[in-house]
Amino acid sequence: MRPAALDWSVENCTVGRAMSILGERWTFVVLREIFTGVRRFEDMRRHTDIPRQVLTNRLTMLVEQGVLRREPYREPGERLRHEYRLTEKGFDLYPVLIAVWEWGDRYLADSEGSPVTVAHRDCEGTLGVQLVCSEGHVLKSPREAATRPGPGAKLFEAR
Amino acid sequence: MRPAALDWSVENCTVGRAMSILGERWTFVVLREIFTGVRRFEDMRRHTDIPRQVLTNRLTMLVEQGVLRREPYREPGERLRHEYRLTEKGFDLYPVLIAVWEWGDRYLADSEGSPVTVAHRDCEGTLGVQLVCSEGHVLKSPREAATRPGPGAKLFEAR
Repeated sequence: MRPAALDWSVENCTVGRAMSILGERWTFVVLREIFTGVRRFEDMRRHTDIPRQVLTNRLTMLVEQGVLRREPYREPGERLRHEYRLTEKGFDLYPVLIAVWEWGDRYLADSEGSPVTVAHRDCEGTLGVQLVCSEGHVLKSPREAATRPGPGAKLFEAR
Repeated sequence: MRPAALDWSVENCTVGRAMSILGERWTFVVLREIFTGVRRFEDMRRHTDIPRQVLTNRLTMLVEQGVLRREPYREPGERLRHEYRLTEKGFDLYPVLIAVWEWGDRYLADSEGSPVTVAHRDCEGTLGVQLVCSEGHVLKSPREAATRPGPGAKLFEAR
């Protein structure tokens, strides 16, 4: 059976676009650092072992994309430096990070377990994500969901 | 203030590991295709315009990582071919895909809107993810969450 998805163009697909920002290991590692409070270039570099030039490129790209913003600071006796803060657009990546975290913990942790847990402050319960629809229904399985052509759907024409 | 996260090693970080599988645009595009029912090599290649060798590499990697499995099929008069199906590990990536989708639709869609909507079959409400803890509390904001050293935490030593 021919999948209906083949009728529709992926040229303006927002998943593809999101992953061209996110779709590279170090980008997510940078976001993890910033979400866990590590905001300064030298801290990130030493903590993650990302090559200096790669880290510079990722931070620049994330600032250009509006995910991070640069905030000046000055330590006593040092020159003016910048730390990196999440914008609202960056902050809204938290569910993506948690979804990745949850899956990684389930399938990729060492036998002793994951090095970091994300907890609900109120009860210390472990954080995860759940599928929910705009009507407020919680979905138990992806099988309860279906893709539909959206407002920007374009018919697919093979090149 | 020195962030507490700096005390802890990221060497066995499951987010980093997850993104070394996921962290590349085409990997997620392949998953999107398969989740939307496009399972055959030639269909994916034409639909996405992924270069043939890149698609082969991504599919091989995802099979090796246990995210996809190969299922044989034969069209009348053709040779035996394979299509790609999600394993349980792959199926469990659905919340990650939806989290990326939701963020992409919010920030990266063209003015007319996203080409594809993911809907709850029962009520046609648009799908998203929400943060929830293991005690069943729904979190309104990332500020209600905090990272904790997990069972696999190792003290960080700079190389």
